[in-house]
Amino acid sequence: MSGNSFGKLFTVTSFGESHGLALGCIVDGCPPGLELSEADLQEDLDRRRPGQSRYTTQRREADQVKILSGVFEGKTTGTPIGLVIENTDQRSKDYSNIKDQFRPAHADYTYMQKYGVRDYRGGGRSSARETAMRVAAGAIAKKYLKDFYGVNVRGYLSQLGPIKAESVDWNQISENPFFCPDASKVAEMEEYMHALSKEGNSVGAKITVVAQNVAPGLGEPIFDRLDAEIAHALMSINAVKGVEIGAGFDCVAQKGTEHRDEILPEGFASNQAGGILGGISTGQDIVAHIALKPTSSLRIPGRSVDVEGNQVEVVTKGRHDPCVGIRATPIAEAMLAIVLLDHTLRQRGQNGGVKHSIAVIPKGQG
Amino acid sequence: MSGNSFGKLFTVTSFGESHGLALGCIVDGCPPGLELSEADLQEDLDRRRPGQSRYTTQRREADQVKILSGVFEGKTTGTPIGLVIENTDQRSKDYSNIKDQFRPAHADYTYMQKYGVRDYRGGGRSSARETAMRVAAGAIAKKYLKDFYGVNVRGYLSQLGPIKAESVDWNQISENPFFCPDASKVAEMEEYMHALSKEGNSVGAKITVVAQNVAPGLGEPIFDRLDAEIAHALMSINAVKGVEIGAGFDCVAQKGTEHRDEILPEGFASNQAGGILGGISTGQDIVAHIALKPTSSLRIPGRSVDVEGNQVEVVTKGRHDPCVGIRATPIAEAMLAIVLLDHTLRQRGQNGGVKHSIAVIPKGQG
Amino acid sequence: MSGNSFGKLFTVTSFGESHGLALGCIVDGCPPGLELSEADLQEDLDRRRPGQSRYTTQRREADQVKILSGVFEGKTTGTPIGLVIENTDQRSKDYSNIKDQFRPAHADYTYMQKYGVRDYRGGGRSSARETAMRVAAGAIAKKYLKDFYGVNVRGYLSQLGPIKAESVDWNQISENPFFCPDASKVAEMEEYMHALSKEGNSVGAKITVVAQNVAPGLGEPIFDRLDAEIAHALMSINAVKGVEIGAGFDCVAQKGTEHRDEILPEGFASNQAGGILGGISTGQDIVAHIALKPTSSLRIPGRSVDVEGNQVEVVTKGRHDPCVGIRATPIAEAMLAIVLLDHTLRQRGQNGGVKHSIAVIPKGQG
Amino acid sequence: MSGNSFGKLFTVTSFGESHGLALGCIVDGCPPGLELSEADLQEDLDRRRPGQSRYTTQRREADQVKILSGVFEGKTTGTPIGLVIENTDQRSKDYSNIKDQFRPAHADYTYMQKYGVRDYRGGGRSSARETAMRVAAGAIAKKYLKDFYGVNVRGYLSQLGPIKAESVDWNQISENPFFCPDASKVAEMEEYMHALSKEGNSVGAKITVVAQNVAPGLGEPIFDRLDAEIAHALMSINAVKGVEIGAGFDCVAQKGTEHRDEILPEGFASNQAGGILGGISTGQDIVAHIALKPTSSLRIPGRSVDVEGNQVEVVTKGRHDPCVGIRATPIAEAMLAIVLLDHTLRQRGQNGGVKHSIAVIPKGQG
Repeated sequence: MSGNSFGKLFTVTSFGESHGLALGCIVDGCPPGLELSEADLQEDLDRRRPGQSRYTTQRREADQVKILSGVFEGKTTGTPIGLVIENTDQRSKDYSNIKDQFRPAHADYTYMQKYGVRDYRGGGRSSARETAMRVAAGAIAKKYLKDFYGVNVRGYLSQLGPIKAESVDWNQISENPFFCPDASKVAEMEEYMHALSKEGNSVGAKITVVAQNVAPGLGEPIFDRLDAEIAHALMSINAVKGVEIGAGFDCVAQKGTEHRDEILPEGFASNQAGGILGGISTGQDIVAHIALKPTSSLRIPGRSVDVEGNQVEVVTKGRHDPCVGIRATPIAEAMLAIVLLDHTLRQRGQNGGVKHSIAVIPKGQG
Repeated sequence: MSGNSFGKLFTVTSFGESHGLALGCIVDGCPPGLELSEADLQEDLDRRRPGQSRYTTQRREADQVKILSGVFEGKTTGTPIGLVIENTDQRSKDYSNIKDQFRPAHADYTYMQKYGVRDYRGGGRSSARETAMRVAAGAIAKKYLKDFYGVNVRGYLSQLGPIKAESVDWNQISENPFFCPDASKVAEMEEYMHALSKEGNSVGAKITVVAQNVAPGLGEPIFDRLDAEIAHALMSINAVKGVEIGAGFDCVAQKGTEHRDEILPEGFASNQAGGILGGISTGQDIVAHIALKPTSSLRIPGRSVDVEGNQVEVVTKGRHDPCVGIRATPIAEAMLAIVLLDHTLRQRGQNGGVKHSIAVIPKGQG
Repeated sequence: MSGNSFGKLFTVTSFGESHGLALGCIVDGCPPGLELSEADLQEDLDRRRPGQSRYTTQRREADQVKILSGVFEGKTTGTPIGLVIENTDQRSKDYSNIKDQFRPAHADYTYMQKYGVRDYRGGGRSSARETAMRVAAGAIAKKYLKDFYGVNVRGYLSQLGPIKAESVDWNQISENPFFCPDASKVAEMEEYMHALSKEGNSVGAKITVVAQNVAPGLGEPIFDRLDAEIAHALMSINAVKGVEIGAGFDCVAQKGTEHRDEILPEGFASNQAGGILGGISTGQDIVAHIALKPTSSLRIPGRSVDVEGNQVEVVTKGRHDPCVGIRATPIAEAMLAIVLLDHTLRQRGQNGGVKHSIAVIPKGQG
Repeated sequence: MSGNSFGKLFTVTSFGESHGLALGCIVDGCPPGLELSEADLQEDLDRRRPGQSRYTTQRREADQVKILSGVFEGKTTGTPIGLVIENTDQRSKDYSNIKDQFRPAHADYTYMQKYGVRDYRGGGRSSARETAMRVAAGAIAKKYLKDFYGVNVRGYLSQLGPIKAESVDWNQISENPFFCPDASKVAEMEEYMHALSKEGNSVGAKITVVAQNVAPGLGEPIFDRLDAEIAHALMSINAVKGVEIGAGFDCVAQKGTEHRDEILPEGFASNQAGGILGGISTGQDIVAHIALKPTSSLRIPGRSVDVEGNQVEVVTKGRHDPCVGIRATPIAEAMLAIVLLDHTLRQRGQNGGVKHSIAVIPKGQG
């Protein structure tokens, strides 16, 4: 019941199915005075938009967002911002064959178990199509953080199947269809995707998101810790199976002397913590990684059952991303930005402002 | 502000510092009719309790919990359950030397940045001592799930520093001080801890928690997905830096054919998903893993600054766990149980009941 | 920040200004399986719609609602229901003269103080126009309560300025433009409104809402008591300045013997309590009354200040209701229904169902 | 389920029954830096405490509050404040006779219907005894508002049964056992209570609460309007059946010219609105009134049923207040203060501060 809202003071509530009339969301709690136009949202929507390269689904959606309220004379007013995107390229006939079957690794089975009914067209509400509204809402959060605090939220594909990005050049990310920050790996990725496509298979991916210039002091222990809320936000993205902050699972085999980030008068000496200690931001870069599972819609047949429990063979012929991770970078950025703005407002509620690093402890290079 | 509550219908709110008078919590929303006594909570509290072996802190706390309300004639009444544990072995003098210093990798610095003041005695609110109340509250959730739904929530240490448990024998877990399910690794772990202790260093760990016999249909997409809430709950535990559901980060390099759990008439053929698809439980085992960082309190000196920004050398001489992961198993179980009960009640709100697997799709071996 | 959501399990979040492109809301948490079409919502929307009689504003709005999601093959799916109503008759020019003035008793001044900016066109977000979405969302709640529990939520105008309805004939309410249940008072009301209109003045009103066949056991003490949530819901309606449950303010002068509702084997002997004891429904009719202030937009000049603090004289010439109470009946019904459905779901969460009166204590005539 | 928390950023969660071991609450979200001691809470607790005069119950409770956490070196730290009051004078034997009966107008019947079980000792959770914790939590809110914003929250008994206070002298309120601000009515009240007591009957009351020096801009339309949240808070107090803001139900018969508060350059000309327009504070005094029903525990027999539905005659012989309204003034103040502090923090979250009236529009005499 009612699990479609996220954020306490900056609250995003969304609706919409893959093949319904429209997707929409309400962004409630955006402070007044932010300059905002549809173009500001469109930029990130276009980064996520399908059909941009041969490596993503060929569904053609303009993903044209409309702002229905909350903006007056070019600025937010503090009242809720209503957003809507019409679905234009839904082809329901593609999905009629799966009406009575549960595709393996899809949400078909669980939606049926939960609700007793499901909109089977393109996965209905469980489709990654809903992430368009996350990106739209996140673009508002990103802009507020940028304009008022100079915070920069961005991300990249750090691993595609077996291929790892080994260096991070922020300028490279928009130069290739994978959001890959390591130009030397792009050709390899293209080749890999080509073979994968031929095979009819799919693969997982890893995304890294980073927020720079974050104020220290964000996060509300003990349950609304900043890392806990980031984990919640990122794990709520379709296909995500793991979340790490900073060193993440590497810390299992680390010793204390290796993991602890020493502090020098000029700042932290390292950033194993990923910018969060005790659930509160340190002022260093916030760094998080997520694992995305391989797309479940495959041309290679798989075994499943139908609604009556009979064994069936499932083959998916619709338009799908062979690697959902490829388009996930703007989505992960959006969710991180939403958490950070929400916690910025919560911290303002506590002390009437948000401090930037105190003089004696500059944010350092960490 | 106000981040000390967790859960929507089954809500846990906690208070208390390491060296204050007492820890406490309010469990609001436990349905009436559950048989409950202090002994039911004490069992898990004793599993988490410090000073039980040479591998954990030597602080001696009885961790005796008192139920102050919400139970009448041996059963819960549906009204809030007030719990309190008095602190008895706080030695504030141990900590006076760190009053004006920020211990590396501790929350000292961030609490100071956030609140402008901090209770430096034993880490105050940021101490892992607060997890005692999580365990007490979680014991109520575990008992309700067990008594009314036959759900079994349990966990184990799956990795201690470099040493991995390679088999899972549930009967072994209580037979060693590490919660290790692989008897063949215990000696190695003892040796490792011994050397670590001599060195004055600490190490990370990995914990796995499993819930068996969970009903399908739990979880509220898109933001309150079951996996997202589990991630939130587990990442909110002190020292946790990563959370995985099922295959977790392994799925990055998996192909679709490898990851997808096929469905047979007798059940799922595998459980890469960790029991959750589309944010909703499948009825298979829920499986989650967490990474815990090495304890930050070390006898090996580390560089830091004091409140005035001067370089200082920090050595921690208090009583500390060389591996916080060792005592974390009951805490992770508690948080998983709290999420599951909360979502069980939410699902009951939706359809007036919680289904167990439908006949045609038994839960299988997954 | 983010105050545009109501309800915990059945959650309504709304957006939209008087003269923006559209109004909308998201109804999250409606259980699956409810038959629902736009026509079901339109009925109540038409009851609230302006321009229906000479006694309400002459603004012409079709108030045609569109369901954008959450309904599939004629039934709700359990996923969020997106609703939108386009504004079609906004005449912004009417309001340009009040851009820099604060109309007395309007929200102009407080919105400016709060947000530092305001959409002055027709009152922006503070316009009663937003109540259209409350009515649409409430129609869903009313239908669920009716179809699944036989609960009947309805209301009437109990007082118009000095004129009180002295009898309640439910069949009369739809027969006159005032929602008046006492046919003998309609002519007097018409005359009164005619004189008022001539005078350029406005007047207050009192509305009564009743829910019949409510299950006992709804309400969550101590803070989410049913009466407290009803008070919240009703007081959140524009222009409402008072809320009563049952005897309301009459109980100030009542003695205990007069107020207490005795219980007979066949049911309660009276209903001074308005169907709620200790914050929980008794199974009797829920009865609530609200006071609505007179419309603040008058043709009779009033003193105010402009944004620079200069004294000005304000005259409102736009299209306005001379008595906002007249159209308030469906709005109050909607809010009561939303609270009742939310608490029905919360009670189902507690015990897996909602009891109807137990045999020994039938609901009686109270 | 889980209805024992109130407030979004300043959150109060409480537990405890009339005859349990203790009452307690957690105040989460109090900003750091507030000077706070137990004595600060005791003052208001003593005003509410029973057994202070012959006009209230003779139960003797010290109501000695203990602060268990959240305060360090005399100041709040921003972490949750745990409070506890032990019950010392519970005489469970007094109540054994009502174990199987439903006292008319009490919550006995509804608690049984809701939970299927009840702690019948002294009303259990439904006893007004829980209001002690509201007063303790409210004292923190009052002190913060006073120390940081100069806001003054206070109240008085405006009517006792048929006797109205006709003037308000704030200095008189503490001079009589009724919290009556009109010294000329005290003798009449004493006489009335004496007769009532002889008769074995009880009577209702009306309380007025006022907050002075409130900043404009508090309140979050459209659902978390300030008036709506005040209504929620006040209606959640035991025995309250009505809430009014400003003119309240008087506005039903008012004309627009009478109700609208004109604005002069030196401030508002009147305060019919009770300090709230459009759900947002104006900067004028917040004024609210509540109606409290007569105590339901009477020595005069009343008809009811037992748990098997048999007709019984109920007579209450325990220790009870003949007019619960008498002790309700500090409770109402507490709830108003909690709402105001919560909304102060929410408004700080929006704009990083809370404005006091802008120069051109001083708060005036309203």
